[in-house]
Amino acid sequence: MNYNLAFIGFGNIGQGFAELLLEQEKQLKEKYGIEYKVVAISTLTRGTVYNKNGLNLKEILKLIKKGEPLTNHCDVKKGWDALKTIKDSNADIVLELTPTNIKTGEPAITHIKTALLCKKNVITVNKGPIALKYKQLMTIAQKNKVMLKFEGTVLGGTPAITLGTEALAGAKITEIKGILNGTTNFILTEMEKGKEYQSALKEAQRLGYAETDPTADVEGYDTVAKLVILANVLMDVNIKPSDVKRTGITKISLANIKKARQNGQVWKLVGHIKTDNGIKAEVAPKMLKSNELLANINKGMNGLCIKTDIVGEITIIGAGAGPKGTSFAILNDLISINRTLKGINI
Amino acid sequence: MNYNLAFIGFGNIGQGFAELLLEQEKQLKEKYGIEYKVVAISTLTRGTVYNKNGLNLKEILKLIKKGEPLTNHCDVKKGWDALKTIKDSNADIVLELTPTNIKTGEPAITHIKTALLCKKNVITVNKGPIALKYKQLMTIAQKNKVMLKFEGTVLGGTPAITLGTEALAGAKITEIKGILNGTTNFILTEMEKGKEYQSALKEAQRLGYAETDPTADVEGYDTVAKLVILANVLMDVNIKPSDVKRTGITKISLANIKKARQNGQVWKLVGHIKTDNGIKAEVAPKMLKSNELLANINKGMNGLCIKTDIVGEITIIGAGAGPKGTSFAILNDLISINRTLKGINI
Repeated sequence: MNYNLAFIGFGNIGQGFAELLLEQEKQLKEKYGIEYKVVAISTLTRGTVYNKNGLNLKEILKLIKKGEPLTNHCDVKKGWDALKTIKDSNADIVLELTPTNIKTGEPAITHIKTALLCKKNVITVNKGPIALKYKQLMTIAQKNKVMLKFEGTVLGGTPAITLGTEALAGAKITEIKGILNGTTNFILTEMEKGKEYQSALKEAQRLGYAETDPTADVEGYDTVAKLVILANVLMDVNIKPSDVKRTGITKISLANIKKARQNGQVWKLVGHIKTDNGIKAEVAPKMLKSNELLANINKGMNGLCIKTDIVGEITIIGAGAGPKGTSFAILNDLISINRTLKGINI
Repeated sequence: MNYNLAFIGFGNIGQGFAELLLEQEKQLKEKYGIEYKVVAISTLTRGTVYNKNGLNLKEILKLIKKGEPLTNHCDVKKGWDALKTIKDSNADIVLELTPTNIKTGEPAITHIKTALLCKKNVITVNKGPIALKYKQLMTIAQKNKVMLKFEGTVLGGTPAITLGTEALAGAKITEIKGILNGTTNFILTEMEKGKEYQSALKEAQRLGYAETDPTADVEGYDTVAKLVILANVLMDVNIKPSDVKRTGITKISLANIKKARQNGQVWKLVGHIKTDNGIKAEVAPKMLKSNELLANINKGMNGLCIKTDIVGEITIIGAGAGPKGTSFAILNDLISINRTLKGINI
């Protein structure tokens, strides 16, 4: 099938996905019969380009890498912003790739709502809208008979959402426990090697795992958002980030780490939700026994234990966020949309 | 949507799935809009029952539990066998649940072919047909625009097939390494506790993990069949069980186990296939470093590491075979068929 894609936001993730699309073009066509055109790219600071017959993606990537605005491109649309691009372009799949705002979810919530109301499918990796408005957005999608996909919002390229919604569709999930943030897991792994917190944080920043202001990661906000998404999507509850008890890793000292090790334990930042006896949701550093599966997930890796009514515990482990994994999640969402639209005509 | 199901084979797995269906009836309707009738049950030794308006499943389960033949039932069809049931019943989903014959794949291959040619969807947990004739059967399914689903052939309720084919659809899988047999993993875990092989095997037999003739498990044949299925389905190769180098666990002694432990290693029966430099496929006991993920999978648990081109390694861990997990896999395949047939009308 043929798809017209519009990128809303074209930062690291958008550019990474554009490169992956070019790389995978042949395989998408041969393996899945997917052909695509990128018809629009809308950015906040570099302008918008649109061509209903398809943009020259390679050329635009070159322009962006040189740091030039899209206004230098022949397909520039003066006065077009994200909303106009969503409404007036001939895109049938909108990629919402703007930065996450976990407090308001905006402008991504408005972008996604607008696209769904225009009967356009949406793929996003933005945690804000899914953590804050999942049920509302899904209702709009269903009413308009389009899809909203968001595999990349949790665990990057490790397909936790599809695992829960499709591969475990027949199960009732009663508990989720996971290492959901690669940055803090990297820091704790460095501390296991003997570094103090501040020095491990600096190493994480030097390697690009942690941002200059590491608050969202080290204080647990990012893990909270992911836990809320997993809970609302996979456990059919309706919780908000403020419903999750939150403690970061900044108070963990090297002495804590060493003491735990003497007892055969390791510290991990764990997101945990149980629903069997009321909803209990918490993000906090926990001491895990060293032979537990989650205790053996190190560096930037993520892992998730899903407890089910019928088949006990299923654990999935893989690389956490990062442009490549997140791009892969978008690619997988595109293939999933195609699978649904093709139906039995495989 | 409404489905008419026919059971071909009604042993432990068939009965287990029938019970799960009854248990999940309300949830299937509410969550997925799935309604079903069991219209036929065909067994090799107890006869066949058929009612185009739906059998009384509870009553039939009672009859079977009492050890009575289905000929005592009002819906008995004299002279009907599996093939006649597949062809002449009004079933639209055929559940092929006869015992695995890994050498010939029969009679299951003929059952499945017949159903697909009659344009009926098939769900099977029988390893024979998928290990021996996967490509041929899928071609028939595609030509007839029906589906062939087989999640339960590997890792029981742990959804390895859906993980690979759907959740990781965008990736090229270059290597698979796994603990795919619960019986041998249970035996090796018992040996880790200090038992000799023979005594560990007896314990596995006492608890129902191992059969009276344990050859298929302990000599690695079962792992070979599962590795072939995973390879052909997820890696787009076309290998036969005889292409896999095979060594069982019967030569592993307690002394081997102890020696490995002194070096921080544990013995596991590992199925392994790589395709990056020609196809190399092997099932053999391997010493794994004790901090490797697969080394920490104990008792009847299974685990699978999938190496991909785009997102590195993804590992999934969960309970192996067993009637409950296998029934769950069938349930999930039913939901998956429904998802495809409903398409966007979610």
